[in-house]
Amino acid sequence: MDYNKRSSVSTVPNAAPIRVGFVGLNAAKGWAIKTHYPAILQLSSQFQITALYSPKIETSIATIQRLKLSNATAFPTLESFASSSTIDMIVIAIQVASHYDVVMPLLEFSKNNPNLKYLFVEWALACSLDQAESIYKAAAERGVQTIISLQGRKSPYILRAKELISQGYIGDINSIEIAGNGGWYGYERPVKSPKYIYEIGNGVDLVTTTFGHTIDILQYMTSSYFSRINAMVFNNIPEQELIDERGNRLGQRVPKTVPDHLLFQGTLLNGNVPVSCSFKGGKPTKKFTKNLVIDIHGTKGDLKLEGDAGFAEISNLVLYYSGTRANDFPLANGQQAPLDPGYDAGKEIMEVYHLRNYNAIVGNIHRLYQSISDFHFNTKKIPELPSQFVMQGFDFEGFPTLMDALILHRLIESVYKSNMMGSTLNVSNISHYSL
Amino acid sequence: MDYNKRSSVSTVPNAAPIRVGFVGLNAAKGWAIKTHYPAILQLSSQFQITALYSPKIETSIATIQRLKLSNATAFPTLESFASSSTIDMIVIAIQVASHYDVVMPLLEFSKNNPNLKYLFVEWALACSLDQAESIYKAAAERGVQTIISLQGRKSPYILRAKELISQGYIGDINSIEIAGNGGWYGYERPVKSPKYIYEIGNGVDLVTTTFGHTIDILQYMTSSYFSRINAMVFNNIPEQELIDERGNRLGQRVPKTVPDHLLFQGTLLNGNVPVSCSFKGGKPTKKFTKNLVIDIHGTKGDLKLEGDAGFAEISNLVLYYSGTRANDFPLANGQQAPLDPGYDAGKEIMEVYHLRNYNAIVGNIHRLYQSISDFHFNTKKIPELPSQFVMQGFDFEGFPTLMDALILHRLIESVYKSNMMGSTLNVSNISHYSL
Repeated sequence: MDYNKRSSVSTVPNAAPIRVGFVGLNAAKGWAIKTHYPAILQLSSQFQITALYSPKIETSIATIQRLKLSNATAFPTLESFASSSTIDMIVIAIQVASHYDVVMPLLEFSKNNPNLKYLFVEWALACSLDQAESIYKAAAERGVQTIISLQGRKSPYILRAKELISQGYIGDINSIEIAGNGGWYGYERPVKSPKYIYEIGNGVDLVTTTFGHTIDILQYMTSSYFSRINAMVFNNIPEQELIDERGNRLGQRVPKTVPDHLLFQGTLLNGNVPVSCSFKGGKPTKKFTKNLVIDIHGTKGDLKLEGDAGFAEISNLVLYYSGTRANDFPLANGQQAPLDPGYDAGKEIMEVYHLRNYNAIVGNIHRLYQSISDFHFNTKKIPELPSQFVMQGFDFEGFPTLMDALILHRLIESVYKSNMMGSTLNVSNISHYSL
Repeated sequence: MDYNKRSSVSTVPNAAPIRVGFVGLNAAKGWAIKTHYPAILQLSSQFQITALYSPKIETSIATIQRLKLSNATAFPTLESFASSSTIDMIVIAIQVASHYDVVMPLLEFSKNNPNLKYLFVEWALACSLDQAESIYKAAAERGVQTIISLQGRKSPYILRAKELISQGYIGDINSIEIAGNGGWYGYERPVKSPKYIYEIGNGVDLVTTTFGHTIDILQYMTSSYFSRINAMVFNNIPEQELIDERGNRLGQRVPKTVPDHLLFQGTLLNGNVPVSCSFKGGKPTKKFTKNLVIDIHGTKGDLKLEGDAGFAEISNLVLYYSGTRANDFPLANGQQAPLDPGYDAGKEIMEVYHLRNYNAIVGNIHRLYQSISDFHFNTKKIPELPSQFVMQGFDFEGFPTLMDALILHRLIESVYKSNMMGSTLNVSNISHYSL
């Protein structure tokens, strides 16, 4: 054996890791420490945390010490952080409500860092379509490759479902039903729960978060945007009861302005497929059905995705498939797909796909980072891989970008518009974006 | 024992039976022989078939002979039939497309029969709202008590669910999801299947029949009409493949003009409850869910109704209940409901209700006839029972009338209108009918 020779199956890149600067990584609390950090930790040859920014530098210093980030520097100002040439990729993992105010100056300051290649922003990108468009434009002008954490696209269940659909295993899709229960927004509110998630306009709510992630996943799996949609948005619970950790009511009611129910129906552009969605908030959770159910019916078979919570992008799911693969499935080159030698046209195939110990909260974000590193190091040795791309769209490869986020924001805006106007809306131009 | 004394629990009325004249009872085929006839046969002390009308008198004579209807006369003309004073109740069980042309002259001729008290018409009453209104007006003018076969209201599962809801066992309803699969209207058509059920305008289709019955049941269970609705109607399968009895394709395609999918969403007047419905047509049937699912979620519990086919009104269902009864459930007199001595406020109650051998096709129609006889003979000894009523509405007692049918027809018309206009419609005045 030649131990000096690099293994052909090694995933360790033959180059320096991507140097990551975080806005919002705090060892003591928050989303980044629970997801981005463990995800990066499993890819330590590909990513290295080199910079932290927080309005309080003490927080960054404490985080560096607790996590033993020996290569990281705590920056005192957003300007010094964004200007530092030790950063290849900036990750924004703070409250959505602050995204616009942080990202816009950050992109401006970052013009002093010639090494900056990637900007990774948490969904929902911004609190409004206007802000989202401004961020998109600024990032495009700055010339960075963007990443949005629509990480459901990286869920192994979603990718397997997308694969089964795209390879003709359910034939043509002819109807879809989705029912989800987004845990918050119910009759009761844990007293320790942060107030901003119950106030409309902060970029975290049943429509933007629960529906947004799930409908992005649906579009991604089916490789289709919507043509017509109708939506009804409800706030039937304008006041919540505060409860303590044990679930006891504290006798205090607090206002809630975010929606607690969304009815959404529409048709997919591909095949005029009817899609029915009902998203509800809060407990009591459903007794006779899972809190997330996505039923996809086709001419040759059915797919069902089930999860314990309405958050498809962070849930460990179960994928059920039953059907007979269509034998007239066309390939991109116009030929018929080759059939397995043992292929029996009438035979029904069943599959239950479940990874029992899969931690979807970390896992999907991990796979998103993995896809960034695959792109950066061209791990899959794709010939003539461009150095940037505008959007992922419905490709298996790559990762969702701010353009994918903008298209989703437009759909979400249409949901509110349909509700306000009492109209069914034509949204078939939503993916043809011109700014 | 005094054998001359009438038993207090006897269901045999102490009066002459209701004399029934049928339009559409044919011993050889059709709906009436499969449902109305066996239903009446079980109530032979309450109902007696005394007259049959068919355009061909031979059909009526053959039916009388085969069914040994010793008290029945075959009438040669609609006029002689409708004028005969041997009839207390006329039952119309022919194709909906012919209802208007038969019922309108029949009501006119019936003015010669002073004994006529009841007119029982099969759903969908008529092919259009206009025709339905004309029939309603003519019947009201003629002064008969009407009955419409929205027999789902008599299903034991629906009544049990209505009881659980009205007695506070699921608290306040806060969301509802319905998914149904109406067996016809798919990619294939059995060659022996009658053509008219695939042609729009004949009063038998996914919207009028499948959705109509199911949404009537939903409104009845929840005791609420709708306030806002949006609908999208699809005919994604404009041509069907003919198949033989064995399911083999005959290589022939035939046009289909009835819808194969309906998306419907809206809010109940009571409590602004979001309701999501998806009705699809045809095979393949669903693999991972029942072909009929009605999920009703409340603040104190959940109800689920499941059936093997999308036709709730003729299906043997399973009712699942789980919840804790609200202990603040108000009675009609404004008092709190008395609690059982053993009542435990926090205790979860479960119920699975299923009658294994229940024949819902006959059973629900049977129960509808039973309710007519209960009314006619005042079996339940209700004081000051009026001799007529305009509509059942959401009462447990009684039976649905042509007014209930009209209100449902208005909802169905709104479905098509919403689809055509691309609008969410306010339908909150639908039950306040003035003609």
